[in-house]
Amino acid sequence: MRPIRTTIPLDEARAIIERTISTIERTERVRLQDAHGRVLATDAVAMSDVPPFIRAAMDGYAVRAADTSSASRSTPQILRRVGKLFTAQITEQPLAAGECVEIATGAPMPPGADAVVIVEETESSGDLIQIFVAVQPGQNIGRRGSDIEAGQTVLDNGTWLTPSQIGALAALGTTDVTVFAKPHVAILSTGNEIVEPGRPLASGEIYDVNKFSVAAVVSDHGGIPVFVRTASDTLDDLDRAVNEGAAHDVIVFSGGSSVGERDLILDAIGERGTVLFHGISVKPGKPTAFGVINGKPVFGLPGYPTSCLTNAYVLLAPALRTIARLPPARTNQVVVPLGRRIVSAPGRHQFYTVRLENGVAMPAFKASGDITSMSKADGYIEIALMTDVVEAGEMVTVTLF
Amino acid sequence: MRPIRTTIPLDEARAIIERTISTIERTERVRLQDAHGRVLATDAVAMSDVPPFIRAAMDGYAVRAADTSSASRSTPQILRRVGKLFTAQITEQPLAAGECVEIATGAPMPPGADAVVIVEETESSGDLIQIFVAVQPGQNIGRRGSDIEAGQTVLDNGTWLTPSQIGALAALGTTDVTVFAKPHVAILSTGNEIVEPGRPLASGEIYDVNKFSVAAVVSDHGGIPVFVRTASDTLDDLDRAVNEGAAHDVIVFSGGSSVGERDLILDAIGERGTVLFHGISVKPGKPTAFGVINGKPVFGLPGYPTSCLTNAYVLLAPALRTIARLPPARTNQVVVPLGRRIVSAPGRHQFYTVRLENGVAMPAFKASGDITSMSKADGYIEIALMTDVVEAGEMVTVTLF
Repeated sequence: MRPIRTTIPLDEARAIIERTISTIERTERVRLQDAHGRVLATDAVAMSDVPPFIRAAMDGYAVRAADTSSASRSTPQILRRVGKLFTAQITEQPLAAGECVEIATGAPMPPGADAVVIVEETESSGDLIQIFVAVQPGQNIGRRGSDIEAGQTVLDNGTWLTPSQIGALAALGTTDVTVFAKPHVAILSTGNEIVEPGRPLASGEIYDVNKFSVAAVVSDHGGIPVFVRTASDTLDDLDRAVNEGAAHDVIVFSGGSSVGERDLILDAIGERGTVLFHGISVKPGKPTAFGVINGKPVFGLPGYPTSCLTNAYVLLAPALRTIARLPPARTNQVVVPLGRRIVSAPGRHQFYTVRLENGVAMPAFKASGDITSMSKADGYIEIALMTDVVEAGEMVTVTLF
Repeated sequence: MRPIRTTIPLDEARAIIERTISTIERTERVRLQDAHGRVLATDAVAMSDVPPFIRAAMDGYAVRAADTSSASRSTPQILRRVGKLFTAQITEQPLAAGECVEIATGAPMPPGADAVVIVEETESSGDLIQIFVAVQPGQNIGRRGSDIEAGQTVLDNGTWLTPSQIGALAALGTTDVTVFAKPHVAILSTGNEIVEPGRPLASGEIYDVNKFSVAAVVSDHGGIPVFVRTASDTLDDLDRAVNEGAAHDVIVFSGGSSVGERDLILDAIGERGTVLFHGISVKPGKPTAFGVINGKPVFGLPGYPTSCLTNAYVLLAPALRTIARLPPARTNQVVVPLGRRIVSAPGRHQFYTVRLENGVAMPAFKASGDITSMSKADGYIEIALMTDVVEAGEMVTVTLF
């Protein structure tokens, strides 16, 4: 057995990962309706003005503003309606003094008109329209290019596309966009005891949990999970798995990073690349390894479900977001009193799961091997390296899952 | 023209929507790896214990705890190693007094052993193992069913599945799960001037923005957007579109809810169902309608891109989450000083978009018709009905997009 004699602090582990990974360069073309949440890989430049014409910004009457200068509720100005313009209707006929055109929001303004009086400030008797308010030139109209001007960079390369930005691309007439590819993350579980769900368990066997929980984290943080066949605890089989995984952008093992004699992941990584650390002073998740093979980051997560998933959140997810060029994840936190005293592992930064019950954080952690330590929890609190005890009633910050 | 003479407050609009919609009942079967983020439609009950056997929780030596009672660093107890057990290896041979078995984390405990001494607290010389610490019965082992007991309900019907809950389902050996279907949301843009991106614009035409931005909101909040062919401003065409939309769970129009004579959405809804409100005292987004056709909610969102998208966030998204049985959306907010004075529309609850620049919220709102009012913003502040002015330097809460 090879015990982990030394561990590095969490921050050092994060720093090593940060300087090892690099952002993805591969791009792909997707349809606009599939581009939401993706990262733009070019500048989006407007080829023409939006809107491409001067238009009414309100429903009402297109007028010459000067004709309304003396209008008020008590002394309305009367203009003669000479036409109606709905959206997509064009008139070449210029508006003469004393005339107005009924116009719908979004319809192109008639030549000569320079403002719109909103319908609520008018009253019609046949074609004679009473105007109750004076308008300024430009009032209630949208000038050509007022939203976006031709030549303008609407979105920069590297923009993470939100719904409104998808809308801005649509406004330009975009049908397809070039975005950065999502990193492919090879995920494989190691261990002779690990069995694929759906098959019967023999004595001493358990179902594979980590493959599925890690895949869920990967897809939440901009990656595409790729399942690689489960490896047994032999160097040959692990080497086959490493080789298969190295075809992808990131490799994630779970299991085989503890100290048993068959903990061969380190050897398997070392054979084709470099191990950069093994052992972090966190709980759960101490037996975590990280290395690099052909420039591809390799995460060796612990086999225990809660240890594995904790480090998938704490280490893998932020790294994946950097690779995928996504902004840092938004964390949702609440500050509440702790419902029961917690004694923490000394000398380790602890992620302690809690359940929220009536505004109180109740300890939910059972054991690192129990997935129910997390699946029955709403989030976790962090207990610093040097803190041994958190008393009941202390205010704690819960990061929600 | 039919002006909107009266509007209802935002809260009233929300209440009408809430009491009109109902949660989805349709279910479907998905593979476990596709179940993340979905809502479980059955209780998940364990058919057997997890783990299904008593196992070592640490790497070390399986012992009879009584044999270690006098062990310490200065007076080690010496036990004889009689075997090695790796994961998935079983022994039927009971441990006798004075014996130990080298064991890996996760391996089944040999009969007779009731504790594990961690490898760090031992030293070996051949098969003679020095034990430096006394252990209690049960120490460093995981009992059968310690994570999940057979018969236990692991997850309740209605659970929104997070990564750890996917893991818990995997631990049960689950391959497929029954989840509630995602609501299908028919989206269609109305207006003669609206053109599909990719086609050239004639005079007076603009590209369809809303279809794409609303679809992005729909997929963010648990729905499946379904594009229905854009309708022109004729009652026949709208009726055809309403009929097509009514095949889905929710219908969303954009455009055609303002006051122009061709604003026929209300007529189209009224013909087959009931209009429940038209006009909300918000800005942007006042000309928003809502109704019901054959029990299906129908949202008539404004045609203006920023008005449309604002109400997609404010009204459609929460309703969709309720229908989809998702928990309320988590909002991300920051409190920062306002960088420039804002004069708000009196008598309307205003959603005012802002950009964050060096920790200050700079007004980003241009006009309701400009998608760049949102696409160049980081979020919005809300200005209450009765507030007319927010001064520069006032602290404002920005809800991030």
